[in-house]
Amino acid sequence: MEPYLFTATECLEKFKDGSLTVEAYARSLLARIDQRDSAVKAWAHLDPEYVIEQARALDRIPPEKRGPLHGVSVAVKDIMHTKRMPTQHNSPIYQGDAPEIDAGSVTILKRAGALLIGKSTTTQFASPKDGPPTCNPNDLSRTPGGSSSGSAAAVADFQVAIGLGTQTGGSTIRPGSFNGIYAMKPTWNAITQQGHKTYSLTLDTIGFFARSVDDLELLAKIFALEDDAPREAETAVAIQGAKFAFVRTVVWPEAGPGTLAAMDTAERLLREHGAEVEVVNLPPEFDEMPRWHRIIMDTEARSAFLPEYRISKEQLQPFITDHVENSTKVSREEQLEAFDGVAALRPKFDKIASKYTAIITPSAIDEAPLGQKFTGSAAFNVIWTALHTPVVNVPGFKGENGMPVGLSLVAGRYHDRHLLTVAKEVGKVFESQGGWKRYCHA
Amino acid sequence: MEPYLFTATECLEKFKDGSLTVEAYARSLLARIDQRDSAVKAWAHLDPEYVIEQARALDRIPPEKRGPLHGVSVAVKDIMHTKRMPTQHNSPIYQGDAPEIDAGSVTILKRAGALLIGKSTTTQFASPKDGPPTCNPNDLSRTPGGSSSGSAAAVADFQVAIGLGTQTGGSTIRPGSFNGIYAMKPTWNAITQQGHKTYSLTLDTIGFFARSVDDLELLAKIFALEDDAPREAETAVAIQGAKFAFVRTVVWPEAGPGTLAAMDTAERLLREHGAEVEVVNLPPEFDEMPRWHRIIMDTEARSAFLPEYRISKEQLQPFITDHVENSTKVSREEQLEAFDGVAALRPKFDKIASKYTAIITPSAIDEAPLGQKFTGSAAFNVIWTALHTPVVNVPGFKGENGMPVGLSLVAGRYHDRHLLTVAKEVGKVFESQGGWKRYCHA
Repeated sequence: MEPYLFTATECLEKFKDGSLTVEAYARSLLARIDQRDSAVKAWAHLDPEYVIEQARALDRIPPEKRGPLHGVSVAVKDIMHTKRMPTQHNSPIYQGDAPEIDAGSVTILKRAGALLIGKSTTTQFASPKDGPPTCNPNDLSRTPGGSSSGSAAAVADFQVAIGLGTQTGGSTIRPGSFNGIYAMKPTWNAITQQGHKTYSLTLDTIGFFARSVDDLELLAKIFALEDDAPREAETAVAIQGAKFAFVRTVVWPEAGPGTLAAMDTAERLLREHGAEVEVVNLPPEFDEMPRWHRIIMDTEARSAFLPEYRISKEQLQPFITDHVENSTKVSREEQLEAFDGVAALRPKFDKIASKYTAIITPSAIDEAPLGQKFTGSAAFNVIWTALHTPVVNVPGFKGENGMPVGLSLVAGRYHDRHLLTVAKEVGKVFESQGGWKRYCHA
Repeated sequence: MEPYLFTATECLEKFKDGSLTVEAYARSLLARIDQRDSAVKAWAHLDPEYVIEQARALDRIPPEKRGPLHGVSVAVKDIMHTKRMPTQHNSPIYQGDAPEIDAGSVTILKRAGALLIGKSTTTQFASPKDGPPTCNPNDLSRTPGGSSSGSAAAVADFQVAIGLGTQTGGSTIRPGSFNGIYAMKPTWNAITQQGHKTYSLTLDTIGFFARSVDDLELLAKIFALEDDAPREAETAVAIQGAKFAFVRTVVWPEAGPGTLAAMDTAERLLREHGAEVEVVNLPPEFDEMPRWHRIIMDTEARSAFLPEYRISKEQLQPFITDHVENSTKVSREEQLEAFDGVAALRPKFDKIASKYTAIITPSAIDEAPLGQKFTGSAAFNVIWTALHTPVVNVPGFKGENGMPVGLSLVAGRYHDRHLLTVAKEVGKVFESQGGWKRYCHA
């Protein structure tokens, strides 16, 4: 098997048993990227020499001193600072900008031994508008989603094992669904956002892409995601006897046929495997969540982008200048109503979530839309982003055009490790019986 | 009058009428610093050549193209990134580190024409422990407070007009009180924290030091602090007929004689000037605030400092490694209880505050303590930091040792501009009749 096909967990085994060097792995990935980049266009910056340099340095580390992510390949979304690589935010303002500083998340990965492959494409400053030219590896005529377009596409296309993204609306979970890979948005602020470009302090959350739950668990350990009951969290959760809430939020009418079919199939499969399934509607007070999310995003971006606005407002997307100019005329009173309203619902949702093994809900409206400009709707994601809950996209289903469709597993805040143990078991069922199979496109 | 004595507002007048060049102003400041630095020790980094280079470039800008802060001198706390100057966080980990990147706040100041004088001292990563060697200019045997020690001391000592600080506990308002200057902590997240080292995302707030409210208003405009009712906010507030709440929080028993006397004098003065004064106790549910503040700080610092912990935990203060290791064993449940508990009190406090022209409450326990190691207690600040309210320290009172004592003016969130108009009138009274006078020490 070509090394580029390995998940992070598989790589680590090969590096450990000596059957693979990091340099050989890096060269395999670079060859894969070379073969596919003109089609998928996942990279904003990639310097093969820097990759090989890192790989050789990693190979020189004696086995007993190697980190828990030794040699594992990572794509870094281009709104996160990295030494030795520019950070350009898909913005002309930062064209060629390369400050010698690592984001906190990048520092943690490097200290764990990660092999940084390059900077992956993003919409401008991770906004919901105007996707980069990146294509969905499952169908090049479609978007991989956004704003973490490149990281999701690169992981789905076997160009890299792990992708770093962020989510302010649905920028991690939605691309996970569109590309047929696992994606995780941990509890808000469980991982530092230091060195990521801020969009909305209350909403911005780091995100991960991988092709297995084992890989996500590896990241969870490295980033010290810790639940209150670690022993329980580390115990496998059986589907038999588990209790799932299928949650239809206020945006349920937006679900397309692919998502509706996935929800139906998932419900049937989990029942067949012995789980209890309940269709649950959130109380009506949660219906304000999408509107409140939008207000929080708009108003927090107002201060977040003032520096770039002062540098050169002409070089910003209108969507971003609108934030700074408060073009929707949101008053401070409305801003605080949204901020406090969401805050009051967080513990209420946690309480609901505590009654179930996990919540299951759509990851996207449907399959990835056609084209690159529109990166898809975040309607099914924004509620969980604002509630600060961990979310894992589990792939396995198929839409009307044969494209992947995933579903979101959600738990209460700081149940990240628990959620991963659930995702592992649910993933086995969805991936084997959901109807869609991951495929390495040539 | 020596140019170094000018406030920001006074400088701008001189630059406008052509009676002063930025270079002449810069040289005056540098001479003042040269004279005083060995005693006050406010600077972590200062390069006179870079200062003169900026000043000359500013002088070359034609008058019609000058920014609203043209030539005004600013000290930048050394946890905020700056191009051309190192950012060292008073940490051996970042010794000599100088990434070419500006914090968002620094970008905004530079675009407005500010003259950056240097990086001002801080405790390690702005923690509450172990002050830098910086001395209080009013009495060199005492602390200027922390963690924004250098910015506060430099402004108080007429080495710079404006100081940038941050506040996670009481790191801006307390040094304001200790040094006898104005200090402002705006509403949380009204100004971007991008490029400031994160301690606690929910608590960290930028802070300003100045020697006049006019200067704070200048900054408020540049940073686009905007209330809902700008016309009203811009209208002067008269003390006659104003209604002040003197708030004694749960930490009231900690107030020392200087602070008790200041509260008494302030009450008497405001009454004499025709204001209505009410002594108000917050409802008992606010008594949890100091404990919740501590839990939020501890647990959010747990993820904020993981990168530095992974780089070199041996080089971190035990206070910081304790955060990362969760040595106080705070559970996720307790963390969320604190996070949600404070969130629920924010709108309740805003409602209380809306009944008054402003809240008046202590800025510190008492005068600045002796020595440099202990930077003073933040007991009287943490409640407002966690509530996200704007706070202005107004100087004017005197403690038992002749040191300055200030009081905090507090308003509901996003009433920053209103609070400044109140501070201007209250400041006139306190500064003229409170008993303490600012003095330029030779």
